Amino acid sequence: MTTPTVPTTVPTADPRRTEREARVSLSMLAEPGDLRLGGFVDALGPAGLLAALREGRAEDAEVRGLVADTALRAQQADGAAELARAARLGIRFVIPGDDEWPPQLDHLAVAGQNHERGGVPLGLWVRGPLPLQALEGSVALVGSRSSTGYGEQAAGDIAAMVARAGRIVVSGGAFGIDQAAHRGAIGSHAPTVAVLACGADRVYPQAHSDLLGHIREHGAVISEVPLGAAPLRHRFLARNRLIAALTRGTVVVEAAQRSGALNTATWATRLNRVLMGVPGPVGSAASGGVHRLLRDGRAVLVCDGNDVLESVGSAGEHLVEEVRSPDTARDALPRRTRQVLDAVPVVQGASSTSVARTAGVELVAAQQALLDLEARGFVERGDAGWRLSDREVPSQLRAAP
Amino acid sequence: MTTPTVPTTVPTADPRRTEREARVSLSMLAEPGDLRLGGFVDALGPAGLLAALREGRAEDAEVRGLVADTALRAQQADGAAELARAARLGIRFVIPGDDEWPPQLDHLAVAGQNHERGGVPLGLWVRGPLPLQALEGSVALVGSRSSTGYGEQAAGDIAAMVARAGRIVVSGGAFGIDQAAHRGAIGSHAPTVAVLACGADRVYPQAHSDLLGHIREHGAVISEVPLGAAPLRHRFLARNRLIAALTRGTVVVEAAQRSGALNTATWATRLNRVLMGVPGPVGSAASGGVHRLLRDGRAVLVCDGNDVLESVGSAGEHLVEEVRSPDTARDALPRRTRQVLDAVPVVQGASSTSVARTAGVELVAAQQALLDLEARGFVERGDAGWRLSDREVPSQLRAAP
Repeated sequence: MTTPTVPTTVPTADPRRTEREARVSLSMLAEPGDLRLGGFVDALGPAGLLAALREGRAEDAEVRGLVADTALRAQQADGAAELARAARLGIRFVIPGDDEWPPQLDHLAVAGQNHERGGVPLGLWVRGPLPLQALEGSVALVGSRSSTGYGEQAAGDIAAMVARAGRIVVSGGAFGIDQAAHRGAIGSHAPTVAVLACGADRVYPQAHSDLLGHIREHGAVISEVPLGAAPLRHRFLARNRLIAALTRGTVVVEAAQRSGALNTATWATRLNRVLMGVPGPVGSAASGGVHRLLRDGRAVLVCDGNDVLESVGSAGEHLVEEVRSPDTARDALPRRTRQVLDAVPVVQGASSTSVARTAGVELVAAQQALLDLEARGFVERGDAGWRLSDREVPSQLRAAP
Repeated sequence: MTTPTVPTTVPTADPRRTEREARVSLSMLAEPGDLRLGGFVDALGPAGLLAALREGRAEDAEVRGLVADTALRAQQADGAAELARAARLGIRFVIPGDDEWPPQLDHLAVAGQNHERGGVPLGLWVRGPLPLQALEGSVALVGSRSSTGYGEQAAGDIAAMVARAGRIVVSGGAFGIDQAAHRGAIGSHAPTVAVLACGADRVYPQAHSDLLGHIREHGAVISEVPLGAAPLRHRFLARNRLIAALTRGTVVVEAAQRSGALNTATWATRLNRVLMGVPGPVGSAASGGVHRLLRDGRAVLVCDGNDVLESVGSAGEHLVEEVRSPDTARDALPRRTRQVLDAVPVVQGASSTSVARTAGVELVAAQQALLDLEARGFVERGDAGWRLSDREVPSQLRAAP
């Protein structure tokens, strides 16, 4: 692209304030994830690009396209007024350079540039007490709105454990898996974050009025689109990249083959985040998309919060002790002693020679093993010879007759 | 190891017969998977090793150990008589060099040498009409004896589809997943193979008398242990290596953390076979071992027979068309036209300027898109302006309000 002429801007007393107002105005003009924005902001600065769009002048064809697409809104966008209105609602606008700016969002400058939408957001509207620094190491849980009880249970359990471990649970505030994830975190008395596709002042879906109210009181509701903006479909797609970018890893709990959650998963992969999937019953359509991610090796399988913490943790952090059943007393026996034990009959007694022959072990060694096994209570000696002790019979019968 | 003195053997007219009889005798003397066997057979030949064991002489300490362990059986093992007895029962003994010998078993000479058991079997007792060449490209299905209805359904469905694709289903004849796998193949009118830990003449478990009867009539029952041998625990472990080695891939359907099926899985990995796992509900203990295999990346996730065929197939074989929901008419629209469509209100009409402003698209382009969408039946024009056509309303409402 040809760099357009840099417009002369009137310097103000507070350049950060100018930049913030310009970014707000730009976010009111352009649609989120518009890939043309990043380059122009870099080249012209937010105020310079805003002036170009407002004045409708651009030599560059691409800028002309953005000018045309934003023309109908150009006169409405008053960043200063919008910031004041947002402040009255308790909503702040966080931009690059702020202490609170999540540096992980800058990865969006590189990832996904060859796709329909992408790019670093102009800023984030934030409603809630949680400082965005808390999102360092956070975990996204996403999935189907048409979830099953199975998926909701899994999402809630995982969210509860992740939250208890001190990591923020991020989701989209929607029905189904999103809701279960937020509720799981809340159940652990932890703040949680909802990233919305509509304005941070709106309640969508309406039925989540209480849930979103709780989130913005204890955690944060985040959006890159202006106050009042409706949740249009392409804004969901743009929103998904933020969920993936803000977090260290994304867990997909249930997603059918066309679920929007798979779009978030794709962003997690592009951004080199940890992508995790919770399997479901193999016939469950609700898990079809997750199973595809797992089968293709794009996602790692997680069953519970421990698995998630292990996967998103740094080296040495959240190590999960490998789950294994306790060793049995039998496990502690030497191999040949076990072989002798397995040759001892259950009911009728047998001579040590018979046991040795069945086991395929030298007679003297078998006799030694039988004495050892008797001392440990595995076998007993009767008139008819060696047999298993009563203690050993049930499990032995289950293993081999 | 020091090579023991080669004993002088009386040459017979048929060296293959001599070898076969010697291998039978050896299999009656030693326990299956005894790692000492392979090297001695290579060094002395089957007849030479047999003579050494019978005569109880060996300079080598390791051979002396094998001599001691087999001493109690040494005089009983009459290979020629056993072959004759087996022939009367319709059981043959297949050894290396036979046309029917499965060459894939030779991989056991290398794999697993540092473990408790392993090695190429001395031979295979086979009962049934299926020639063992048919095991080329076969698939093992293994899993818990304490299976759930879910696992049995999955195993049965997978076995049925694998069998219909012309691949032999191999399992262990046990309760639970094994049984479901055999039955699935039989339901597809295909032969199936059971590899047993007891003698091929025995019926174990007894409750599977009908099942094993069907298998040996149409497929094959296979074992490396002599006729009449009991299914001792260490023989199951030895048997598992045969299931893994005979097949191109092993599918673990349900396995708890200590299931014997995981031993088969370990052998599949050692033998560089394809290891597959069917996931279950995350809370299901019956699937705990499978989930661990999948999470560790040792097994690839499979949901159905198509997935299994794709995983065990050669390049270009059994390709499964990627499951995706059909593209909708909306998918076929250009991106900006979709963006305009998403901005058209559901109920109340809106002017093209309003739609363009909401969409963030240039007015002229939005007007063009609206005419295009009208022609395709997505939107309609009323007195109040543009609105979605009735056809589009329900799905649109589901996606975004």
